[in-house]
Amino acid sequence: MNKKILSGKNIVPTFFFGAVILGLIFFVIFSFLSNNRELQRETLGEIGAKEADPAVWGQYYPLHYQTYMQNFENTEKPSHFETKPYMEKIYAGTGYAAEFNEPRGHVYTLEDILAVDSARKKTGAACNTCKSSQIPEIIERYGDEYYQMGFNEINDQLEHPIACLDCHDPKTMELRISRPALVEAFARQGKDINKSTRQEMRSLVCAQCHVTYYFEKDTKKVTFPWDNGVKADEILEYFDGKGFTEWNHPDTGTGLAKARHAEYETFVGSTHETAGLACADCHMPYVKIGNTKVSSHYWTSPLKNIEESCMTCHREGSEWLTERVEDIQKKTKEIQDIAGNVVVKAIEEIKAARESSGVDAQLLQEAQEMHRKGQWYLDYVMVTNGYGFHNPTESMNNLGKAIDYAHQAIQLAKDAVR
Amino acid sequence: MNKKILSGKNIVPTFFFGAVILGLIFFVIFSFLSNNRELQRETLGEIGAKEADPAVWGQYYPLHYQTYMQNFENTEKPSHFETKPYMEKIYAGTGYAAEFNEPRGHVYTLEDILAVDSARKKTGAACNTCKSSQIPEIIERYGDEYYQMGFNEINDQLEHPIACLDCHDPKTMELRISRPALVEAFARQGKDINKSTRQEMRSLVCAQCHVTYYFEKDTKKVTFPWDNGVKADEILEYFDGKGFTEWNHPDTGTGLAKARHAEYETFVGSTHETAGLACADCHMPYVKIGNTKVSSHYWTSPLKNIEESCMTCHREGSEWLTERVEDIQKKTKEIQDIAGNVVVKAIEEIKAARESSGVDAQLLQEAQEMHRKGQWYLDYVMVTNGYGFHNPTESMNNLGKAIDYAHQAIQLAKDAVR
Repeated sequence: MNKKILSGKNIVPTFFFGAVILGLIFFVIFSFLSNNRELQRETLGEIGAKEADPAVWGQYYPLHYQTYMQNFENTEKPSHFETKPYMEKIYAGTGYAAEFNEPRGHVYTLEDILAVDSARKKTGAACNTCKSSQIPEIIERYGDEYYQMGFNEINDQLEHPIACLDCHDPKTMELRISRPALVEAFARQGKDINKSTRQEMRSLVCAQCHVTYYFEKDTKKVTFPWDNGVKADEILEYFDGKGFTEWNHPDTGTGLAKARHAEYETFVGSTHETAGLACADCHMPYVKIGNTKVSSHYWTSPLKNIEESCMTCHREGSEWLTERVEDIQKKTKEIQDIAGNVVVKAIEEIKAARESSGVDAQLLQEAQEMHRKGQWYLDYVMVTNGYGFHNPTESMNNLGKAIDYAHQAIQLAKDAVR
Repeated sequence: MNKKILSGKNIVPTFFFGAVILGLIFFVIFSFLSNNRELQRETLGEIGAKEADPAVWGQYYPLHYQTYMQNFENTEKPSHFETKPYMEKIYAGTGYAAEFNEPRGHVYTLEDILAVDSARKKTGAACNTCKSSQIPEIIERYGDEYYQMGFNEINDQLEHPIACLDCHDPKTMELRISRPALVEAFARQGKDINKSTRQEMRSLVCAQCHVTYYFEKDTKKVTFPWDNGVKADEILEYFDGKGFTEWNHPDTGTGLAKARHAEYETFVGSTHETAGLACADCHMPYVKIGNTKVSSHYWTSPLKNIEESCMTCHREGSEWLTERVEDIQKKTKEIQDIAGNVVVKAIEEIKAARESSGVDAQLLQEAQEMHRKGQWYLDYVMVTNGYGFHNPTESMNNLGKAIDYAHQAIQLAKDAVR
C-alpha cells in the first residue's frame, strides 16, 4: 500500500475527489431512474386520454400491471345458494333467483357478465355500467340514452374489463371519478366530489361501483339512493318516500327494493373509516416487487396478504388477526342465516294467506310492508362483501332488525287469515 | 472565591470527595424510600391475615387507598326500568321486578344491599357472598352451611364492603381467589386455578363476582354454570341438562333461568381478551399520584379515565375513542330494546293462550320453551355491564337469537289457540 497517499498531507483532497466521483455516479443513476418514465413516454408516447386497454397502461407501469394481472388468480365463482340457500326464494321474480354467483373480480367482469343467466340482464345496457373501462367514453358518446339501449348493443362494443382508466387520469395518474352516478349522488346531497381529499378519493374511486344502486324507473339511469344518507334505514326511507319498488315478489305480491353490494356505505362510519382509513389502505396495500414498492392492484380479501394489509397497523400477528376477522364473520353469518330463514318463512306465510279465502286485506298489506322491511335489512348485509367485517356492529344491528320485521310479517300474515 | 482550591492540582481529589458525599446522600434517600414500607410495618405491624377493613390496609398503601375511596364518587343508582322498561314484565315473579337499580360500586355494596327491596333477598345468606370482604372468613367458619343461613344472620355480622382482602393476600399482596365458587367451577372443568398466570389473575379476581351464577337448588350454594363453557348457549345447555329453572314466570308458567352480570364470560374470547388483556388493564389503569404510579382501585367505566385506560394502547385521541364505544353501545342498546319488547310480547301472548279455553297443550309448551330461550339470550346481554362493549359481535349475536326465539314463542302461543 502506498503510504504517501494515506499520509496526513494527501488524505483530505483525495477524500473530496472520491466523494465528488461517487456523488456523480449516484446522480446519474438517480436521474436515470427518475426520468425512466419520461424516457419510456418518449419511446411509447403519451397514454391516450381514452385508452381503456390495461395492457397499454402496463407498458408504462409494468409493476402495477403485474399486480393487476394477479386478479386472474381468483378463478372460482361459487354460487351464493350453496352457502345461503334462502337467497333463491327471497329473490324469486328476479334474475338473481335463476343464478347468483360470487364475483371473480375486476379482470373477469366482461367474461362473467356474458356467462350470467340472461334473466339478470333484462334492464339492458345499464347492466354494463360497472363492467368495462370503456363505459365512461360510451356514456359521453350516447349521453343518458346509453342507459336505455339494449344490453348487447353496448356489450358488443366492449373489449376491456374494469381497468386503469376507471380510476386514473391517464395524463397525471391522479385518481378520478369516471362514473356519473357517484358525482350526481354527491351533488344531490349538496357536496362537490371534486373537493375530496386524496385520502377520500382512495375510497371514492371504489364507491363508483361498490355501492348499492338502482335503475331509475323511466330513464333506467344508474342512481345511488343516498339523498337521505347511506345507511340501510336512510336508503329504505328514500325508496319508501319515492314509492319505489324494484319488483313484486311473485309469492307475496310485496313491492320490494333490491340492495346491492353496499361495501362503501357499510364502511362509512366504521371503526376503520372513522380512524381515517380508505378502501385502498386494506385492499390495495403497498407490496414490494424487487426493489420497488407499489400499491397492489390485486383487489381481494386483505386476509390473502395480511402481512401487507392489516399488519401495517396491527402488529399482533397474522394468526390472531385472521381469527378475529373469522370470529366476526362467523357470528354475522350465523345471524344472517337466521334472518334469511325467517324471511323465507314470512314469504311462505304471506303466500298462504293470499291463497286463503276471506283474508283480511288490511293485515295482509301490513304483512307485506313488514316483508319489504325485513328483506331490505337482510339484503343490505347479505350482498355486501366481507360478511359484516366492514362494519360489524352495524351489520349485526341491521340483521337484528331483519329478524324482527320478518317475524312481524309472519304474525300479520297468520293474523290475516285467523 | 479561593482560586487555589480550583487549581488543576486540587480539582481531582475535590471532585471525588464531592461525588462520594453526594452518593451517600442519594443512598440514604433511596434506602429511606425503599424501606419505607418495612419501616411502616415496623411501626404498624403486619396486616392481619383476616383484616377486612380497607382503612387498615390504607395505612400501608395510602395511594391505592386514595383511589379506592374515589369509588364513593359514584353516588347515583338509577333504576334499570327507566332505560329498559321491559325489564319489569320480564322479571315478574322475582324480586328484580320490584326493584332493579344500577350498581354504585364496591364501596357501597353493604349499604346498597340493605336498601334493596326485601323481595330480592329471599335466597338468604348467600346473597351476601359478593357484598363484603368478611365473607371468605365467614364461609371458612360456617362451611357450606353458610349458604343456607338467614340473610340477616350473616348481614348483621358485616361491617366492610368489597375491599382489599377480597383479591389480595395481606402478607405478600399477591392476587388471590377468596371465593369458593370460582375455584370449584375451574375444578369441575378440570382446571387448577392456582396455575393461572399473573395476567390471568388480573381477570380472575374480578371473575369471583362479575359472572353469572345461580343458587344450587337444595344447598343454596353459589355455583357458576360453566361446566360446558362460559358462553350463553353453553350455559343454557347446562341449565337445560340439569332441568334447572330459577323461577316460573307467573304470566306464562315458563320455567326460566336467570342470567347475572356475565362480564367475565362475555369478555372471554373478545378482541381485547384474546389480545392478552385482563379486566384490570382497562378498569384499573396506572394513574399518577404525585410522583408515584399506582394501579387505580376506582372501578368504573374506562371512559371516565380514558387517557389512562384506552389511550395506553389506542393513540387516536379521547374524542374518537369515546365515539367508537358509544357507537357500539348505541347499536347494541337499539337491538336490545327490540329484543326486550319482543320478549314482553311473547309473555303477553303466552298468557293469553293459557287463559283461553281449548288451548293446544303441546304448542303452548313449545311456546314456553321458546320463551325460556329468548329471555335467556336477552338477559345474558342485558344485565351485563358495558352495553355490549365487552364483546360487541357476540352480544349482538345473542340479541339476534333472543329476537328470533321470542318471536317463535309468540307464533307458537298464537297457534296454540287457533
